[in-house]
Amino acid sequence: MTVNPADSEIFGGLYGTEEMRGVFADTALLQRMLDVEAALARVEARLGIIPATAAEAIAKAARLDQIDFEAVAAGARLSGYPAAALAKSLGKAAGGEAAKYVHWGATTQDIVDTALVLQIRDGLALIERDLRALVAALAQQAAKHRDAVMAGRSFLQQALPITFGYKCAVWLSPFLDHLDRLRELRPRILKAQLGGAVGTLASLGEKGRAVTVALAEELGLATPDAPWHVARDGIAETGSFLGLVSGSLAKLATDVILLAQTELGEVAEPAEAGRGGSSTMPQKRNPIASTYIVAAARGVHALLPLLFTAMAQDQERASGAWQSEQLALPQMFLLTAGALAQAVPLAAGLEVDAAKMRANLDLTEGLILSEAVMMALAEKIGRDAAHHQVTEAAAKAAKSRRPFAEVLKAVPEIRKHLDDAALARALDPAHYLGEAGAVIDRVLARARR
Amino acid sequence: MTVNPADSEIFGGLYGTEEMRGVFADTALLQRMLDVEAALARVEARLGIIPATAAEAIAKAARLDQIDFEAVAAGARLSGYPAAALAKSLGKAAGGEAAKYVHWGATTQDIVDTALVLQIRDGLALIERDLRALVAALAQQAAKHRDAVMAGRSFLQQALPITFGYKCAVWLSPFLDHLDRLRELRPRILKAQLGGAVGTLASLGEKGRAVTVALAEELGLATPDAPWHVARDGIAETGSFLGLVSGSLAKLATDVILLAQTELGEVAEPAEAGRGGSSTMPQKRNPIASTYIVAAARGVHALLPLLFTAMAQDQERASGAWQSEQLALPQMFLLTAGALAQAVPLAAGLEVDAAKMRANLDLTEGLILSEAVMMALAEKIGRDAAHHQVTEAAAKAAKSRRPFAEVLKAVPEIRKHLDDAALARALDPAHYLGEAGAVIDRVLARARR
Amino acid sequence: MTVNPADSEIFGGLYGTEEMRGVFADTALLQRMLDVEAALARVEARLGIIPATAAEAIAKAARLDQIDFEAVAAGARLSGYPAAALAKSLGKAAGGEAAKYVHWGATTQDIVDTALVLQIRDGLALIERDLRALVAALAQQAAKHRDAVMAGRSFLQQALPITFGYKCAVWLSPFLDHLDRLRELRPRILKAQLGGAVGTLASLGEKGRAVTVALAEELGLATPDAPWHVARDGIAETGSFLGLVSGSLAKLATDVILLAQTELGEVAEPAEAGRGGSSTMPQKRNPIASTYIVAAARGVHALLPLLFTAMAQDQERASGAWQSEQLALPQMFLLTAGALAQAVPLAAGLEVDAAKMRANLDLTEGLILSEAVMMALAEKIGRDAAHHQVTEAAAKAAKSRRPFAEVLKAVPEIRKHLDDAALARALDPAHYLGEAGAVIDRVLARARR
Amino acid sequence: MTVNPADSEIFGGLYGTEEMRGVFADTALLQRMLDVEAALARVEARLGIIPATAAEAIAKAARLDQIDFEAVAAGARLSGYPAAALAKSLGKAAGGEAAKYVHWGATTQDIVDTALVLQIRDGLALIERDLRALVAALAQQAAKHRDAVMAGRSFLQQALPITFGYKCAVWLSPFLDHLDRLRELRPRILKAQLGGAVGTLASLGEKGRAVTVALAEELGLATPDAPWHVARDGIAETGSFLGLVSGSLAKLATDVILLAQTELGEVAEPAEAGRGGSSTMPQKRNPIASTYIVAAARGVHALLPLLFTAMAQDQERASGAWQSEQLALPQMFLLTAGALAQAVPLAAGLEVDAAKMRANLDLTEGLILSEAVMMALAEKIGRDAAHHQVTEAAAKAAKSRRPFAEVLKAVPEIRKHLDDAALARALDPAHYLGEAGAVIDRVLARARR
Repeated sequence: MTVNPADSEIFGGLYGTEEMRGVFADTALLQRMLDVEAALARVEARLGIIPATAAEAIAKAARLDQIDFEAVAAGARLSGYPAAALAKSLGKAAGGEAAKYVHWGATTQDIVDTALVLQIRDGLALIERDLRALVAALAQQAAKHRDAVMAGRSFLQQALPITFGYKCAVWLSPFLDHLDRLRELRPRILKAQLGGAVGTLASLGEKGRAVTVALAEELGLATPDAPWHVARDGIAETGSFLGLVSGSLAKLATDVILLAQTELGEVAEPAEAGRGGSSTMPQKRNPIASTYIVAAARGVHALLPLLFTAMAQDQERASGAWQSEQLALPQMFLLTAGALAQAVPLAAGLEVDAAKMRANLDLTEGLILSEAVMMALAEKIGRDAAHHQVTEAAAKAAKSRRPFAEVLKAVPEIRKHLDDAALARALDPAHYLGEAGAVIDRVLARARR
Repeated sequence: MTVNPADSEIFGGLYGTEEMRGVFADTALLQRMLDVEAALARVEARLGIIPATAAEAIAKAARLDQIDFEAVAAGARLSGYPAAALAKSLGKAAGGEAAKYVHWGATTQDIVDTALVLQIRDGLALIERDLRALVAALAQQAAKHRDAVMAGRSFLQQALPITFGYKCAVWLSPFLDHLDRLRELRPRILKAQLGGAVGTLASLGEKGRAVTVALAEELGLATPDAPWHVARDGIAETGSFLGLVSGSLAKLATDVILLAQTELGEVAEPAEAGRGGSSTMPQKRNPIASTYIVAAARGVHALLPLLFTAMAQDQERASGAWQSEQLALPQMFLLTAGALAQAVPLAAGLEVDAAKMRANLDLTEGLILSEAVMMALAEKIGRDAAHHQVTEAAAKAAKSRRPFAEVLKAVPEIRKHLDDAALARALDPAHYLGEAGAVIDRVLARARR
Repeated sequence: MTVNPADSEIFGGLYGTEEMRGVFADTALLQRMLDVEAALARVEARLGIIPATAAEAIAKAARLDQIDFEAVAAGARLSGYPAAALAKSLGKAAGGEAAKYVHWGATTQDIVDTALVLQIRDGLALIERDLRALVAALAQQAAKHRDAVMAGRSFLQQALPITFGYKCAVWLSPFLDHLDRLRELRPRILKAQLGGAVGTLASLGEKGRAVTVALAEELGLATPDAPWHVARDGIAETGSFLGLVSGSLAKLATDVILLAQTELGEVAEPAEAGRGGSSTMPQKRNPIASTYIVAAARGVHALLPLLFTAMAQDQERASGAWQSEQLALPQMFLLTAGALAQAVPLAAGLEVDAAKMRANLDLTEGLILSEAVMMALAEKIGRDAAHHQVTEAAAKAAKSRRPFAEVLKAVPEIRKHLDDAALARALDPAHYLGEAGAVIDRVLARARR
Repeated sequence: MTVNPADSEIFGGLYGTEEMRGVFADTALLQRMLDVEAALARVEARLGIIPATAAEAIAKAARLDQIDFEAVAAGARLSGYPAAALAKSLGKAAGGEAAKYVHWGATTQDIVDTALVLQIRDGLALIERDLRALVAALAQQAAKHRDAVMAGRSFLQQALPITFGYKCAVWLSPFLDHLDRLRELRPRILKAQLGGAVGTLASLGEKGRAVTVALAEELGLATPDAPWHVARDGIAETGSFLGLVSGSLAKLATDVILLAQTELGEVAEPAEAGRGGSSTMPQKRNPIASTYIVAAARGVHALLPLLFTAMAQDQERASGAWQSEQLALPQMFLLTAGALAQAVPLAAGLEVDAAKMRANLDLTEGLILSEAVMMALAEKIGRDAAHHQVTEAAAKAAKSRRPFAEVLKAVPEIRKHLDDAALARALDPAHYLGEAGAVIDRVLARARR
């Protein structure tokens, strides 16, 4: 029974993935908190702060199935956080003497923040894996449809010819930047948090820094120069990264929905029995994957101000702002993962109808190439005269709905300079693609790096 | 295992309520969809469109425990919606002949939208109940602390005296408007949806309108003039209402957090063993309820653009926009309910330290009443002269940190016109409260209506 | 030189209107503040609080051209608000004795909030005028194109036939609700503000309420029960109203952009020489008005959380939240006005190509009416058998791309029961429009009320 | 006359800076567009595409004062963009033959996007300059107040002692990360845009890439692998960077407002005659700078989803999404600049009252150090016994409001092990600061790098 559809057993497959749910679920957070408590105990034992036997007992007990779940939930409701009740339950499980050394020197937010960072590390790994799969799929499509000419559109009006491979390269390009961003982001966010109530770690006396360094090392994290309980730029930046990824996915999905329109029919989402079908309207194949990518991306983007506004945390530990982060970041990971999970098979299996692309390109019967005709004519009679002649012919063709070639041939001044072959060449979209192929080459070369 | 904290068994008690979760959970949605299917079958039988026996069988089978949950989840993943698989499963449960008449004439969104409206009706009822309880609690506090003078603050600087009762009345007043808004909102949103694939209900031939009217009546809803599959103003307005309620709650909570600061200590959240406590810092009592109210309100507000932007739905049924609504509205209900559930006991049980209020008011040793002194003196020597004398004295007192009364008495021109009694009266905050009591009276009178 | 495009002399005509800029400009705010100061002086004179001659001098001087603009700007920079410097400058203009009585008893926010309410009143009047014009234009289009059949689309896939008149009615319907909302909103927001530093109006002694009531009356506003310096629900609700209006406009604009696609060509924005044209691509006519409606609506929606989150104002006067409202509300009015100004002529002058609508409807060569054929056949051979036969034929037609009618005629079981006339009737979209006409009638009837 | 306060001559000094307005104003955009046209002409001449004399004439005419402003505004209103009218006006100014070669091969968005990138470059330079000034100011404060002990607060409750220098270091630390982010961001966003109508640059035939490379070089920008007309991740990331900067500023400002409260009085904004003062309430000094920092940051954050959602651009050039970016990014730069302009002098001139800090720390008469006492006692009698004794004493002190030291001394078991000196040392906050000094050292060391 869940309210949030991305969490739901019924809708969850549309908005998220089981895998990312496994990383960011409440139970996963508790386990990560236990992992941090265990690591803390181990390093404190190593540094002679708590007994080694206590640390062993704590580490051994730090498993979710040892924890009194109901007590933790009740504790969370009472104190506002599960950490204290979790530590108590862990202590009980560790038993006797060890119980005294659980959570030694730490504050709630130390444990929760470090646990969150471990979740983020796992979450980013899943995102990266899917980003790479998407890059591979789009690269393959770009190469495969390198020469499939189609209408390029601005304002959803046919403008000039492009190729479908070029479109794929334009889709792909930002994902290469996202991989760069991910590389730069990681060292900024993957940092342990340990500071005690106000960040000074006074309860650990002289050994505070040593414990922090050892804890970070134990968990494979970096050590921050200063505590970041109330410096949340890393969290906000992580959310922003997810927003960038889902924004690029939404661009792709928007195009697919538009290209799959009945009247265009240039692409279709991968066929799967029953997928996107309608029993009473057999002519339909709904672009379901793209639809949910668009929805998920909007869901991610809406949560950005929540994370960024939460940076205005009061004093040494916040009253409200920190607590609102939880409403945003895990959900943003889940929705981004959901969008990627829809996008990878979509990109890999997209059905492309090159004939329909060509047919749509020909809808305006050559008008889309008036710029090309003008350029050809300009070489003979100069740009001004050419512009005048061609624009007039184009207007006539548009008005009369006669083929542009026919209208052009009827203009003596054009006929004189462009014979059938020259005209055919100018009206052939394959000759007016400019940088399209080169763009594909450059993007694919970068993708291979 | 849930990612969204408001859905979680561990954190859910902080951000939401079990009750509202019961209204908006995925399973509740499915049951509401079954309710709509049952009602549809009943009215179609009554209008002679499907056999009465089929309708009976369908109505009887329309219970969640009769449904093949896994099949519905799989169907949702495949087609993008659970509705078709749910109808199929319902048909199976209804058996034989009846199966053919399930979902007759309807489209997925008819069922989901009408089910959503039923959830909204229940959700708004819970909100209204809690709003009324909050109004009652704040009214009681306003009356009880009618004369508890305290410092009014602007920019968090002490400005002029108010009373705590007045503050409660200012908190209360917008909630009375919210009850008005709720009354106006209901007829706009509580409408059945029935239109088939594109809203025209052609599949029901001549009987379309009659079925819609009967269905609405059967469910206790209004009948819309036009289908609203792609006219989502009612949905967005509902979200806006929740945003207004949670905004007013956040105002109250912000004040409580500020008044509860160690250095102010004017109020404390209701005492409950362990509530908001810290084992290592016994001097602390954290304003936990207020903290989560602030967080929940931000969560609600962040989702507003998601709902409003989703109004730009394409053509007769949307590809992305409709699907993003689900990410917002249920969560907004849940968080608003959570904030209200924290706020009602908070308002009812708030611990008020009138002595501390008075002590804080006296911190500036009378300076806060310089305006009052000036007014008293103005009656004797005119406003200009009075302003000059008092401002000078105030500056001197502020600089020297001597009591204002003492400084004032040392000014011959003031001394001459204001004797001890007159000065004491001017420096008594209880005599400089203006409309405070009248505001309480007016707001309480309205609350009683 | 402006940064915000809606304010710009270059871009301003695309995103806003000169008229609404006139209402919400900074200079207009100053004039409105002067109006409030003048009204305050007048009513205080009437109530015997300040001399009548002073009030007259103040009222006479309360014109922007009497004000030392530079001093006000400098004052704003220094104190954070223009109000004090404005009052001082007003006093100077009023001269001598009168100067002492400017701003008597009021606080900065009293003047600014009341001035804002006067701006809102004017702004809402402009919005209402344009809403009514839009309703009239859409009503006319709905009536005119009552019978223009076209494809209804879901997920941007052709689904079932509708009429363009029906689509206009669906666009129109929410605007009628917006007019209701406006009627309900006005009494909640059009209220004077007068409370002094902390809302108690102590500086006016016994006469506080009388002044408030008189001031409100003088300005044609309502009198609030309690000051609303920190109760901003009315402000947020006003923003929400603008969001609802612009959301409905964005729905209309989204459809126009989609219907105007080269491949659909069903509508075009009103022709105007050079409007939306491209000199080098004569085949294009860009849907400029719709594009800017979509952009403006997004701009309005983004600002909603700013207004709603600003409801969490601290204590008696806020430090940050109030100051952020100014970044939202005026801009929201301007963008909504801009969207309406684009939408009214768009709706009135939309070019509709009924023949192209019909041609697009026929693109699937009858498949879009498979549901209608099934219904006709079901009357003869029962629903199950009919469903089986028709679905099979539809699949065959879709696969072979042969006309549906042809395929249907080749099925003996269908041929036997449906002769040419019966089949033609079933395949005539005009006979499968269900409630389309009735929806138009109901919506137009309501629009006329 | 402007609606947006950050653009206003009256309010503009509070929300923005004249300097950043100069970078992002509409007129600045036009000049930058002229700069791009001039550069394009120059490189096309160099590559033999247009005559050198034409390029010279164009470059010479590319100054705002040569442009027919009204014609450009009218053109923008008509076609939706100023680019075509600007090119025409530029051609007129360039005269005769040259006019034909203006804008050669480019499309509107090429010019606008490249101009925008030039604005961003200038804008980021201003941001960086102010970031560095802020870092310097905070570093100085951190060093200066290294030993000023004060109460650390969580949930706005006093928790444990810190120093003001430590607080400054925590404020400072994220700004060092922001400088890193800026370094990484620049190569991703500072890229020329040149692609013609659909990005293929077909109008330049074989020379497309050469022109792009030369144009980028001419303007000191990078050359993109692929056109980014509809790949807006760089734009969104730039907005995110501004959001991170303003978020960290809002944290600082929030703390200042809280610390400046009448009841705390630990800091005050820099004194300036009349700044933040109130004529009728001489006891007040409003934290005006901090207030506007908070407001501006919220304004920046609200606009994030507008930018991110605009990434879902349709096909080769967008209809609505691109046009909404303009409503966000320039405003975000302006507000961030405004917040920085308030923050730099605030940080440099902040008045710090170390005595008041100490006095507030002593408010709980030692209770804030119960953890320290427990640690001292634990060395003698073990942690468990110590915890028991101290917690009990703390509760007694809290309840009786007697000084903690006094209560502690009355407990025989404590008295026995801790003599006056030991107790005094445990109760001295200067001895319980843990890592505070080391955090300052590490952050200052990094700031110096």
